[in-house]
Amino acid sequence: MRTILLLACLLATTPFFAQSEDEKQIRSIYDAALTDGKAYDWLNHLSNQIGGRLSGSVQAQQAVDYTKSQLDSLGLDRVWLQPVMVPKWVRGTPEFAYIETKPGLTTNVPICALGGSVATPDVGLKASVIEVKGIEDLEKLGKDKIEGKIVFYNRPMEPTQINTFASYSGCVDQRYSGAAEAGKYGALGVIVRSMNLRLDNYPHTGSMSYGDTPVENRIPAAAISTKGAELLSTTLKLNPEIKFYFKQSCKQYPDVESYNVIGEIRGTTYPNEIMVVGGHLDSWDLGDGSHDDGAGCVQSMDVLRLLKETGYKPKRTLRVVLFMNEENGLRGGNKYAEVARSKNEKHVFALESDSGGFTPRGFSFDCSDENLKQVQSWAPLFEPYLIHMFVKGGGGADIGPLKDEGLVLAGLRPDSQRYFDHHHAENDTFEHVNKRELELGAATMASLVYLMDKYGTIPTTKIKG
Amino acid sequence: MRTILLLACLLATTPFFAQSEDEKQIRSIYDAALTDGKAYDWLNHLSNQIGGRLSGSVQAQQAVDYTKSQLDSLGLDRVWLQPVMVPKWVRGTPEFAYIETKPGLTTNVPICALGGSVATPDVGLKASVIEVKGIEDLEKLGKDKIEGKIVFYNRPMEPTQINTFASYSGCVDQRYSGAAEAGKYGALGVIVRSMNLRLDNYPHTGSMSYGDTPVENRIPAAAISTKGAELLSTTLKLNPEIKFYFKQSCKQYPDVESYNVIGEIRGTTYPNEIMVVGGHLDSWDLGDGSHDDGAGCVQSMDVLRLLKETGYKPKRTLRVVLFMNEENGLRGGNKYAEVARSKNEKHVFALESDSGGFTPRGFSFDCSDENLKQVQSWAPLFEPYLIHMFVKGGGGADIGPLKDEGLVLAGLRPDSQRYFDHHHAENDTFEHVNKRELELGAATMASLVYLMDKYGTIPTTKIKG
Repeated sequence: MRTILLLACLLATTPFFAQSEDEKQIRSIYDAALTDGKAYDWLNHLSNQIGGRLSGSVQAQQAVDYTKSQLDSLGLDRVWLQPVMVPKWVRGTPEFAYIETKPGLTTNVPICALGGSVATPDVGLKASVIEVKGIEDLEKLGKDKIEGKIVFYNRPMEPTQINTFASYSGCVDQRYSGAAEAGKYGALGVIVRSMNLRLDNYPHTGSMSYGDTPVENRIPAAAISTKGAELLSTTLKLNPEIKFYFKQSCKQYPDVESYNVIGEIRGTTYPNEIMVVGGHLDSWDLGDGSHDDGAGCVQSMDVLRLLKETGYKPKRTLRVVLFMNEENGLRGGNKYAEVARSKNEKHVFALESDSGGFTPRGFSFDCSDENLKQVQSWAPLFEPYLIHMFVKGGGGADIGPLKDEGLVLAGLRPDSQRYFDHHHAENDTFEHVNKRELELGAATMASLVYLMDKYGTIPTTKIKG
Repeated sequence: MRTILLLACLLATTPFFAQSEDEKQIRSIYDAALTDGKAYDWLNHLSNQIGGRLSGSVQAQQAVDYTKSQLDSLGLDRVWLQPVMVPKWVRGTPEFAYIETKPGLTTNVPICALGGSVATPDVGLKASVIEVKGIEDLEKLGKDKIEGKIVFYNRPMEPTQINTFASYSGCVDQRYSGAAEAGKYGALGVIVRSMNLRLDNYPHTGSMSYGDTPVENRIPAAAISTKGAELLSTTLKLNPEIKFYFKQSCKQYPDVESYNVIGEIRGTTYPNEIMVVGGHLDSWDLGDGSHDDGAGCVQSMDVLRLLKETGYKPKRTLRVVLFMNEENGLRGGNKYAEVARSKNEKHVFALESDSGGFTPRGFSFDCSDENLKQVQSWAPLFEPYLIHMFVKGGGGADIGPLKDEGLVLAGLRPDSQRYFDHHHAENDTFEHVNKRELELGAATMASLVYLMDKYGTIPTTKIKG
């Protein structure tokens, strides 16, 4: 009796047949991804045949050529390159650093230059060290205590945050602005604890900015591994007189031309309404950029292929965009939005995957409450795939510049626990990506794109509280 | 206006202040696990100082001694060893196997004896191969096609299942009963495709049984790596006349005495109601048993420590039980239940962690609908920790024998995508366990134990459909 009642309720409240069709389509997307996915093979090539793809590098160009050729082979309606000028920063000779406890007694520690940093003098830089927990400590200490020293930023990522991206946000100001701020107090250089929740020997690079600091006042900045940071901190406590030495020969070159790689399936019914799915093709140079963001690129490419393979023809135009230069400039994202505006293109939805190729948990959305409610109404369709997060939050850096167009922005949210073990470090490599986890991400993205295309997004201008 | 209404609804339907206390307690459990967890250090010792802990081995005894000493140091009310006789099976000289395409032309392939298998003859075993997709193929082929050959079970794990344990269940009969069944048709030995969703070079062992096959009719059984299985299958297709050679010297010894390791916090209010949290201390011998099930052991130990550290005194008696011999006999689980029955102990709840130390997603429950509904009412408390699965399903092998006592059985459900990459293989090792993922599992378990203790389980006999 109970069962029949329950069934009656279900029939009364849900569009039963439509739901069945959606269930079938989504099941076939996941099946195709898990049995015949292409993402892992593409990532293997990007990671193991090409490797780290910093903007302006030979490898970045190889990645453009490779992904374009792969998109060409998919039988899309159009594949093209969108030119964009990008910064070219080069690491140079591997960095070197040590702690000097007394003259002649030194211990090497693993460091790497932060992206965008200037070099040290040719002979390196040796100075006393002052440890701080953040930029706000600088003012308290004042010029007296900082001038002529190396500032050591050592605030760790907060381990009690469940979402590790929140811990990252709480720390990354040290890396991004630490040198510019310490320079104002006469520091000679900065060493920043790596943005990593784990204790290990990998230094993690990442972008930094000198803001409006004149060129002649820019001081070199490097990341130190978390174990190195612990050692340096302990050594300082035992003897505040120790010195730190580091040497790096990185250099900024003039901008060079590069490309966003774009592929498109033209919409059958509303070809002028554009949906974007993408990741960024550039990566840092230390590892091979498998999680950040090779994974997001190959997943995005596979979204189009999976929809094709399962026989779904989008009503709206669907574009995969592999953005160039997310890591140190966001030029690709800005260029894409600029061109879209200049052509008066109507973007209705954009989805980015740039949080690693781990098991997908859901999506975060930058959109109106009404649009979020629409998406949340689809949650039951994702339940069999253990996708359970449909929350407010950021879409992604590359699609951010589209925001003014009033579209729905979304970001894939994979499990975040291991991401910062690898992020921007030498161990962001292919063997740390699990094939199934990567494929589940691609299928989850394709399923959301399918639903967005089929039902359309609620025009936000119409409905407003 | 809307917000106030919503708040009013919330106040009307949930015990607001009680919830706040629960939220606080659970937050402090997670904080303690992530900042001051002991699970990872314990696992480091179990994995890297002791290693694989097959029942009856020196390492199994070392694991008993080590975990008892650690529990002793926690200031529990009682710690003891529960004797249990366990089987002792020894792998002997590492196995060796090759495919012989013609006399003198051979290709080595990675194999390992299945746990409990007999040895091959001293000089090894060489025979033609017949490939099957499962036990049901044997009858179709008949004695004619099988006698004098090696049966090669090559049904892969089904990749489209989202829960990889379901794929495992769909395959493991080949490993468990393949030799007993093929022996009936005169096969000389069996080779079983490893239970692994990934293509790699690791053979995965695991238990097998000869059922009631007389000793003299038992044939040797080994697992082959998934890549080896693909190679063997392809080679067979090209030339069905090829031969397969393998040699293994494993041996079953008489049973030896071992122990379940048990620690207890006596309940303040209902000391006669017992709650169990546990994992199994034994592991296969190929890796170091980090995921299976070192993780479950150290998480269970940390449940008691975390509750103590956060100042929670259980009303009911809480036991950690580290079961011996889950892998090839379940003697520890059976013994624990037997002793509990003989002492007329009242068990109300048992929770096992034996699915790897990966990011926890929730729990499966073997209990009445009413008990499940009770647990599901706690789901909002787990939401901040991204714990979202509260489903019907198995509790765990070791706690299974308690089922007759009418208690609530539960199993931790971590993300399952990577589990079978490591399960029972040489690469089930410490470096594949992420500290935070392990700690989140321990905190999730401790939080459920806290709620179960505080609110009690609904007596199932009272409420029935």
